Amino acid sequence: MNKSEILEAYSFRHACKRFDPAKEVSREDIEFILETGRLSPSSFGLEPWKFVVLQNKEIREKLLPVSWGAQGQLPTASYFVIALARKPAEMTANSDYIQSLWKDTRKLPPEVLEKLTANYHRFLESDFELLGNERAMFEWASRQVYIALGNMMTSAALIGIDSCPIEGFDKNKAEAILREEGVLKGDSFGIACMVAFGYRESEPRAKTRRAADDVIEWVH
Amino acid sequence: MNKSEILEAYSFRHACKRFDPAKEVSREDIEFILETGRLSPSSFGLEPWKFVVLQNKEIREKLLPVSWGAQGQLPTASYFVIALARKPAEMTANSDYIQSLWKDTRKLPPEVLEKLTANYHRFLESDFELLGNERAMFEWASRQVYIALGNMMTSAALIGIDSCPIEGFDKNKAEAILREEGVLKGDSFGIACMVAFGYRESEPRAKTRRAADDVIEWVH
Repeated sequence: MNKSEILEAYSFRHACKRFDPAKEVSREDIEFILETGRLSPSSFGLEPWKFVVLQNKEIREKLLPVSWGAQGQLPTASYFVIALARKPAEMTANSDYIQSLWKDTRKLPPEVLEKLTANYHRFLESDFELLGNERAMFEWASRQVYIALGNMMTSAALIGIDSCPIEGFDKNKAEAILREEGVLKGDSFGIACMVAFGYRESEPRAKTRRAADDVIEWVH
Repeated sequence: MNKSEILEAYSFRHACKRFDPAKEVSREDIEFILETGRLSPSSFGLEPWKFVVLQNKEIREKLLPVSWGAQGQLPTASYFVIALARKPAEMTANSDYIQSLWKDTRKLPPEVLEKLTANYHRFLESDFELLGNERAMFEWASRQVYIALGNMMTSAALIGIDSCPIEGFDKNKAEAILREEGVLKGDSFGIACMVAFGYRESEPRAKTRRAADDVIEWVH
């Protein structure tokens, strides 16, 4: 694929605060975008995410008062996605989720499964000091969600669709609303972030970034 | 751009454990990949990252004993990138880093700067309950780094280059080595993750992912 075309998509992408309510993203396009989220890599292949496509108007309206960063996007986005991260109890090595993922989805043979479980447990205990730190565990799952988040926004930009990542919401209050509405069930997931898709209503300001020399360092 | 070509890149990408030592990724291609990292979005546009391209053989060798997840990649990658996340002290609203980013890079006028500083401080205090929690602050910066990480791996795949994201290392020990070697200076950054680039030595197993119905939920 052509590098300059890809870079054009990066300059096309911006945090679009309001979408054109008259221009609807097609179902085929949003499914493509979500598919690139689903196919994203994650630590140990754990896919600790769920993407809730919130098309219900009433629930979007209920989120408005607790989501200062989504005031323009909640009412105008063709698709409004709540990106969920899996909670700590389901991310431990012997949790049903992880064991079933490795056994049923990955179809690992018993001896590989056993070794991977042990390695993964050791990783949680030592490398990043995650085990026993609930907040760090949730954040670590959220890191993986952000890989998918980045990919979905880039995929959208590559086919000329705008997006906006949103962290400007009260996590506890937004989760309470989604629980009341039956969107969050059980205790498997918390909100990592939100991301809206649509077509821009107006042109953004020019993009600014720190210089390459400030963010890239070569060690020879 | 063509959706099926993009999806092909997603199926091409896998966590490549060993690269072909005889096939070198060009400098132009790695610069393109890093550029998509640099142009990635981040919360409040804070770009809380640095990408260290570790080409020094001795330092790569020193990292080997503390990086179980990079045994095949450290010795064979054309480019081995340490993705750093900015530490909490530099992520507070009135830190020199953030104020200078908004004043000098974004060139925000004083009244906008003042409002944004207040909003950002409120965000840190309330929405995700970040302020005062050092670990959560570092993890939150790391989430942003993972947006860039996802983008760099996808960009690589789009032009036929392999990659491997690596979390399998002892963070404290790896940081100590990089500090000793003068790669980590001062107290601005910690390691969020590592990512290697090169050309595959052999073909991977088929990709498995949870079914779309398990990870995507529509709420109408």
